[in-house]
Amino acid sequence: MKSDPYLRMQEPLLIVISGPSGVGKDTILQQLKKRNVTFHFVVTVASRSARPGEVDGVDYNFVTETEFKRMIEDDELLEYARVYREHKGVPKDQVRQAFSSGKDVIMRLDVQGAARIRQLAPEAVLVFIVAGSEEELIRRLRARRTESPEAIDTRVATARQELQRIGEFDYCLVNPQGNVDAAVDGILAIISAEHARVQQRQVRL
Amino acid sequence: MKSDPYLRMQEPLLIVISGPSGVGKDTILQQLKKRNVTFHFVVTVASRSARPGEVDGVDYNFVTETEFKRMIEDDELLEYARVYREHKGVPKDQVRQAFSSGKDVIMRLDVQGAARIRQLAPEAVLVFIVAGSEEELIRRLRARRTESPEAIDTRVATARQELQRIGEFDYCLVNPQGNVDAAVDGILAIISAEHARVQQRQVRL
Repeated sequence: MKSDPYLRMQEPLLIVISGPSGVGKDTILQQLKKRNVTFHFVVTVASRSARPGEVDGVDYNFVTETEFKRMIEDDELLEYARVYREHKGVPKDQVRQAFSSGKDVIMRLDVQGAARIRQLAPEAVLVFIVAGSEEELIRRLRARRTESPEAIDTRVATARQELQRIGEFDYCLVNPQGNVDAAVDGILAIISAEHARVQQRQVRL
Repeated sequence: MKSDPYLRMQEPLLIVISGPSGVGKDTILQQLKKRNVTFHFVVTVASRSARPGEVDGVDYNFVTETEFKRMIEDDELLEYARVYREHKGVPKDQVRQAFSSGKDVIMRLDVQGAARIRQLAPEAVLVFIVAGSEEELIRRLRARRTESPEAIDTRVATARQELQRIGEFDYCLVNPQGNVDAAVDGILAIISAEHARVQQRQVRL
């Protein structure tokens, strides 16, 4: 708290949107982008080429596997993980630049990645998204039509394990099927409230 | 946190709106009542009769001084203070009843009263309202035309002292002249965010 409350600074926030596979994180982020353009939405680095329909610099920053390994070695990534055959990571520079312009930074990470961010930046705001129920989660994963029944079983089992880690998060929002606005409103409310906190979070990377 | 995040209970909140005299607490509460009727707005007990225009049970619950003293003796008040020649207090029963019906309870208290609530109910959500600047606060107090210049000086000096206690509060909202909606939106965001907290506040009276 600054000594003069009339001249309070707003510290930029680091907001991590996480939760099990299939809870609708991507849809929430898409809607959030439409509602607010003052946040910086992190563009993840991916070690592959763009697929049809993907735009470099928008969906991901696409780099070669060699370049990705160099970024790891040069400690340029805040967080990274190997997902199937590709690497995905969050570039530190991008986050620092957004912070220095006073922007709140929003990133989407899996549950393990969110937990690692908590260790690196204890003042990050971690939001856990859950589906309306496990049945709903299963319906969503099936509706994707991209995974085998066995793969869906694995994802549901992983979701159950990930739910046990909810205590490591600050907030939990339910994203009920067919009403993404509720979760988007929830995230915007969390960000407003965090900026109004007397003891503001000061993220140091 | 309940073991099953799909069945999260929403603990009702105790929200205290406070801040120095003249920052616009009453106006904020009036607008908040128009925007949300699911909260319970505490009706304060006052040891006097209703003035013209005041409605018993709406603006205050009016009681005699004798009745007020009995309420103090019987420990029926969560918080009370002597303001000029009258007593004002918050009846415990009213808050308990609202809680048992699952409603969030909102009350308006001066800075000292808010600090006492913190001791009684550490899990209360304390919101400190400030004017846009000290100049604005002085303009507002003058615009009331109910107080002498000396009385205004006293209130400004008190406001300065009260600002020193902001560290005892959870949130601080600026209520700039002419835009009460910003503070009302801020309070609604704080309430939404608090309900989304993984570690919910459980108020025990």
